[in-house]
Amino acid sequence: MTSTTPTPSAADRPGPEPFTAEDYRVRMDRAAEAAADAGLDGVLVAPGPDLIHLTGYLPVPTERLTVLVLRAGEDPVLVVPTLEAPDAAGSVGGPALSLRNWTDGADPYATVAPLLGATGRFAVSDNTWALHLLGLQQALPDASYVSLTAALPMLRAVKDAHELARLAAAGEAADRAYGEILTVRFAGRRESEVAADLAALLLRFGHSQVDFTVVGSGPNGANPHHEAGERVIEHGDTVVLDFGGLKDGYGSDTTRTVHVGEPSVAEQHVHDVVREAQQAGVEAVRPGAACQDVDRAAREIIEAAGYGDLFIHRTGHGIGVTTHEPPYMIEGEEQPLVPGMCFSVEPGIYLPGRFGVRIEDIVTVTEDGARRFNNTSREMAIVE
Amino acid sequence: MTSTTPTPSAADRPGPEPFTAEDYRVRMDRAAEAAADAGLDGVLVAPGPDLIHLTGYLPVPTERLTVLVLRAGEDPVLVVPTLEAPDAAGSVGGPALSLRNWTDGADPYATVAPLLGATGRFAVSDNTWALHLLGLQQALPDASYVSLTAALPMLRAVKDAHELARLAAAGEAADRAYGEILTVRFAGRRESEVAADLAALLLRFGHSQVDFTVVGSGPNGANPHHEAGERVIEHGDTVVLDFGGLKDGYGSDTTRTVHVGEPSVAEQHVHDVVREAQQAGVEAVRPGAACQDVDRAAREIIEAAGYGDLFIHRTGHGIGVTTHEPPYMIEGEEQPLVPGMCFSVEPGIYLPGRFGVRIEDIVTVTEDGARRFNNTSREMAIVE
Repeated sequence: MTSTTPTPSAADRPGPEPFTAEDYRVRMDRAAEAAADAGLDGVLVAPGPDLIHLTGYLPVPTERLTVLVLRAGEDPVLVVPTLEAPDAAGSVGGPALSLRNWTDGADPYATVAPLLGATGRFAVSDNTWALHLLGLQQALPDASYVSLTAALPMLRAVKDAHELARLAAAGEAADRAYGEILTVRFAGRRESEVAADLAALLLRFGHSQVDFTVVGSGPNGANPHHEAGERVIEHGDTVVLDFGGLKDGYGSDTTRTVHVGEPSVAEQHVHDVVREAQQAGVEAVRPGAACQDVDRAAREIIEAAGYGDLFIHRTGHGIGVTTHEPPYMIEGEEQPLVPGMCFSVEPGIYLPGRFGVRIEDIVTVTEDGARRFNNTSREMAIVE
Repeated sequence: MTSTTPTPSAADRPGPEPFTAEDYRVRMDRAAEAAADAGLDGVLVAPGPDLIHLTGYLPVPTERLTVLVLRAGEDPVLVVPTLEAPDAAGSVGGPALSLRNWTDGADPYATVAPLLGATGRFAVSDNTWALHLLGLQQALPDASYVSLTAALPMLRAVKDAHELARLAAAGEAADRAYGEILTVRFAGRRESEVAADLAALLLRFGHSQVDFTVVGSGPNGANPHHEAGERVIEHGDTVVLDFGGLKDGYGSDTTRTVHVGEPSVAEQHVHDVVREAQQAGVEAVRPGAACQDVDRAAREIIEAAGYGDLFIHRTGHGIGVTTHEPPYMIEGEEQPLVPGMCFSVEPGIYLPGRFGVRIEDIVTVTEDGARRFNNTSREMAIVE
């Protein structure tokens, strides 16, 4: 699956074509229609990834209510604090919506209420603050609410060609960072130092934001949620490297497990099992398969090797304007895969007190199966 | 109010004494008791500033439920994804609470439900995701919820001596950054370049995180929410500088308005009015005064000068583990001021298309009145 054609580096190329107000209007109208199709009276979107995806406007969520109201057949309305109205109007999606301002001291929920039906049912973006949901529930006690992900789980899941190009570029940049990190010294340095190197490499290769740089050495690798600490990496350590962030507004996320010096037979064996599981997960990706099929395919390999109890997380998560979003590759998720969906395939085995191994690529569903956005070697690299 | 005794720099001094598990336990017990006193059956706290304040644990909020359950007379319980349990247990407040894990694929709300009464009334932290509040509302349809800020607005508002020391140190560091920024070139440089200088200075003087670096030059200063853009600052511009972030976990936030070269009579006049208003706001601070009294004192000066319509935001906001929290200095907020509360006093005048002026200090309420944590000159500095 490794690309054999040399390509110019992501950082050397000009940035992607910017999204336009029209692009955002298409997304907003599609969301309103999807909500209507799902029997909902509208969608309420607070600051966060859904608002970024729908409008290109990215205010910081605060106790001051900002909410986008989408209803089928009506123009999108953004309710916004007066103070922030100039920024909202000036955002890329600004021309595609109308603004409804409220000023400090006024009741913002009373501004939203007339835009909604008193007894309607609305999807509300997952990360909307409880403060604001409670305010809406009080202003419209007979309306009902459901989380946007529960109602329309796949609203952001299927990426268009522009988005796929950005995710591919982000993956390529992360791959370049991995290529470079293999040349730095590991033994004798703290995890946090290698993590700082990874962050600097992501930025060098065009990321605007680093979301995580996990460096899990030796026993720390056995905690899949460990980030990077003050442990000094030693010769003989297995080291999990899991890193990503945003480039041109879209995410990267890749994991490779490396070894400081030659691995033991046991370490190599665990790595082989995870590599086989990751390959099986990727091969399970095809249109119409269920999300849980990807999890099952990877998990079966690990269970068959006797490590089932040590694979303690789901196999993957979606990626887009965030590094962590639906769809989720997990038992019980029956959502069918659709071309254009993008997500991680990242099985792992964690031996408490000893070491961990995880291998992760971002893939997109194609008509034929999966296309990987991470294409570095999945062999266990030897570092110094 | 300017300190005349030279003090060693914040960055040169050792860090503050770390908080202990016992400190956090005291805060958690106090919150549970305050909730009981307010007729509530408990407090639910999701990742965010309230959780940081109560436990020292600072996970990133995600679709995976993490929630602290506080009930009077019971040990605090943190419901946490199994993956994140080691980090939670290892946080400073970890030893002061019990963990209740849930694993991917399980229903986390069913894990929380038995900890709550089926018909109880609970305060829920403002920034809890709507996804999680909806999950709780579904799991316990007969329980009711109110926002933590609505129920216990002053839970984090009154700072103890350790917190006051950290806020004072953060303010001192911001003041040093301001002192240095007066020496850089403004004319001919972009706002974003001066903003980058400000950010670097905050970091140099001990901040771990920069939250905002507003550089509002000329007409951009008339938008109080403008951050910093590509406008090239010109000779003759008025420039609003509003910057802050976190140092040792506590916030700074200060604003000064400077002028590139000599100001006009009109610019100087507006600045004089704002300075007088800011002084009046600070002088209105005393135990027992209402929050709105601070707003009124500052606003009266601006209204008397004929600029009332151009002061388009509240006079201040609290500060602590965030740079933006209750109490709010705004008309209608009758909450009495109590010694130990810390907040901004930051009136402004905004002349659309022309320029803006804002002056801001963080103050704490003392037995006698107010103590400022920002002590740089409030005269309009001339820069080059």
